[in-house]
Amino acid sequence: MPQQNRGQEMAIHQKEHQDNETRFERGLRALGEIDGHGGQQVVDSLADIAPDFSRYLIEFPFGDIYSRPGLDLRSREIATIAALTALGNARPQLKVHVQAGLNVGLSRDEIVETIMQMAVYAGFPAALNGLFAAKEVFDVAEPS
Amino acid sequence: MPQQNRGQEMAIHQKEHQDNETRFERGLRALGEIDGHGGQQVVDSLADIAPDFSRYLIEFPFGDIYSRPGLDLRSREIATIAALTALGNARPQLKVHVQAGLNVGLSRDEIVETIMQMAVYAGFPAALNGLFAAKEVFDVAEPS
Amino acid sequence: MPQQNRGQEMAIHQKEHQDNETRFERGLRALGEIDGHGGQQVVDSLADIAPDFSRYLIEFPFGDIYSRPGLDLRSREIATIAALTALGNARPQLKVHVQAGLNVGLSRDEIVETIMQMAVYAGFPAALNGLFAAKEVFDVAEPS
Amino acid sequence: MPQQNRGQEMAIHQKEHQDNETRFERGLRALGEIDGHGGQQVVDSLADIAPDFSRYLIEFPFGDIYSRPGLDLRSREIATIAALTALGNARPQLKVHVQAGLNVGLSRDEIVETIMQMAVYAGFPAALNGLFAAKEVFDVAEPS
Amino acid sequence: MPQQNRGQEMAIHQKEHQDNETRFERGLRALGEIDGHGGQQVVDSLADIAPDFSRYLIEFPFGDIYSRPGLDLRSREIATIAALTALGNARPQLKVHVQAGLNVGLSRDEIVETIMQMAVYAGFPAALNGLFAAKEVFDVAEPS
Amino acid sequence: MPQQNRGQEMAIHQKEHQDNETRFERGLRALGEIDGHGGQQVVDSLADIAPDFSRYLIEFPFGDIYSRPGLDLRSREIATIAALTALGNARPQLKVHVQAGLNVGLSRDEIVETIMQMAVYAGFPAALNGLFAAKEVFDVAEPS
Repeated sequence: MPQQNRGQEMAIHQKEHQDNETRFERGLRALGEIDGHGGQQVVDSLADIAPDFSRYLIEFPFGDIYSRPGLDLRSREIATIAALTALGNARPQLKVHVQAGLNVGLSRDEIVETIMQMAVYAGFPAALNGLFAAKEVFDVAEPS
Repeated sequence: MPQQNRGQEMAIHQKEHQDNETRFERGLRALGEIDGHGGQQVVDSLADIAPDFSRYLIEFPFGDIYSRPGLDLRSREIATIAALTALGNARPQLKVHVQAGLNVGLSRDEIVETIMQMAVYAGFPAALNGLFAAKEVFDVAEPS
Repeated sequence: MPQQNRGQEMAIHQKEHQDNETRFERGLRALGEIDGHGGQQVVDSLADIAPDFSRYLIEFPFGDIYSRPGLDLRSREIATIAALTALGNARPQLKVHVQAGLNVGLSRDEIVETIMQMAVYAGFPAALNGLFAAKEVFDVAEPS
Repeated sequence: MPQQNRGQEMAIHQKEHQDNETRFERGLRALGEIDGHGGQQVVDSLADIAPDFSRYLIEFPFGDIYSRPGLDLRSREIATIAALTALGNARPQLKVHVQAGLNVGLSRDEIVETIMQMAVYAGFPAALNGLFAAKEVFDVAEPS
Repeated sequence: MPQQNRGQEMAIHQKEHQDNETRFERGLRALGEIDGHGGQQVVDSLADIAPDFSRYLIEFPFGDIYSRPGLDLRSREIATIAALTALGNARPQLKVHVQAGLNVGLSRDEIVETIMQMAVYAGFPAALNGLFAAKEVFDVAEPS
Repeated sequence: MPQQNRGQEMAIHQKEHQDNETRFERGLRALGEIDGHGGQQVVDSLADIAPDFSRYLIEFPFGDIYSRPGLDLRSREIATIAALTALGNARPQLKVHVQAGLNVGLSRDEIVETIMQMAVYAGFPAALNGLFAAKEVFDVAEPS
């Protein structure tokens, strides 16, 4: 590895070291703010199969990514709802993030618009199944 | 079909009829605003293989979906960039929409954050390939 | 936009204008012919979450695409059954289109052949899950 | 394993035994008829990395599936073109099967219709990329 | 077809001919060893919809692929569990192969590690859904 | 959050704290051991678009996952090669991991077997494209 790369890596490493105490805590806070009970239920359900995966789930997605300052949480949830709708194979997680979208201030209409738009990029079945998942969340959520 | 459904459908039909003159024009305007040259190039490239598909592309995604009032264009481009990154099999369209994101006012940082977040939902390779596609667009775009 | 392109677009626009009155009606007729009750149930189920999406579903897939003369409905249903089996993440829509295939004159054998062939292109699990979805439809369909 | 299942399996086994001599030959003939040079090039290109895979490719997809009587080759190619367009991650194979479609008697229009229809089930980018792949094949194919 | 290719093909054909009597039987034995009841149930469930597909399922995946000497069954099951977790649209087959992994000697930990690793390549939702599928299998499996 | 859950989380947090100093370093070492130059090139190529993503790439996949003791590196590379072949939309990463497989001791035959097996789970095109990617790596790798 060339010298200048090592320097860059050391700087990165320093940053990591300094932030590290709060990485899990930061993730836990973000998880609570974003996914609420849905997120916690996922973490709990991992306890007897893959407890370390709970830690990764809190640390990387929530402690690292969602906690970054460059994009607000409303935009982050739009991105996640869009992606999970388009992928079409992660219904439980889509439902958690439809609720998360409501939690961080998206309106039902904004969520529905995001999902409908996926008909363009992933086809009508993906959008339909996304809308039905959202409907299930809306039906049990408090009225908006 | 029950009576009340027919009524609902007639109302929908009325709405369609009334908006219809501007559907193609509205799509063309949205396409220009959002995708700029990238979108037009796609349309042109369809001329000798599937000219009707140009019309559908202008009418449904742009005339119908992007023109809807319920979600601003910045959010719509975040959704599209997220979905195309996650799907990982539509690099040309992802590049068009990274440029589109810049066109409608997203910063490079916001685009990069959106793509990075996809590592959580579609894996690191999808995020990496999305970042490299964005880099190609940024390298030829005017400095932000 | 160059002059000659504008001309082409105007021609396209003319065509749109002229066909437009029947776009929703044409879609509704095609939907009835192809998907029967299955399609209508999907439309109904959207009423309280995304009513406009019903309109798009009738207009674009059925009014625009399925109504085109260049490919017969039997071939269109083979294409759709193949694609939904291969994608493997849209079981409800696959079941609707297995029924649709029967409606437009495909035999059970032709549907089974189409799904089995997907083992080659999308793997055995996709084909197996497609076959099981078809079986559920056949079990409640009238005897062929 | 219960007795009656063994009987069923023996019957299946008998059928296999009896057809077996022609399985590779049948596949080779079907491959030639359907994919022409495209198929043979794929087989050749496997010679120094996975020669047995050539055999499987000839035997299972072509010797077993495409040789079955229950669906004509035109329909089989529509199914394959649809699926490969929808999956969107197998451009070389899609091109081989666009040529194969022409070989077994599909018109360019029928192929274009099949691909366009995938916008409904897998999104516009998948359909666009499918159309561009088809265009490359049409550009070097003999005029239809 | 050039002469040298024909020679190569004849050699391949010879090999096929010679192995052929045991292809179905070999597959049946491998299926029993690997998937146990899960595999047999799949085969049985095809009886009244696509009986020939049972034969292909036994012959190609199990008779051809799993019976090859170049990779041990533990590694093959790791590959399959990884792929089915990553694809995320074949839960029944993933469960069959989690059990298959136990059958051929993988520990629960090794299976969990394989699935967790998929968070890197296919995202956290795919890994989570894979872990939950594995949990269902472990809960009814004999204690390891 | 109930008391017992908090206790569990504190324990997880302790573990994180204690391991944390070496997380980036551990990842860097694992990256070197596994992906060699390929991994480093990816990290370098991120420097001017998303430098933080380099850190995440080193920390989570390599520092967290590949460094876990429960599965040997040969098995981990089989899992990754299988998944990337099956997904079929991450050719650059598949090539990096074919090389990584060689680096950690997999034979060319074992890699080829893993990829061929994906024909069963993700279809022949995915397997073919995986084999061709492997061939490109083998052609420039030192003779095995």
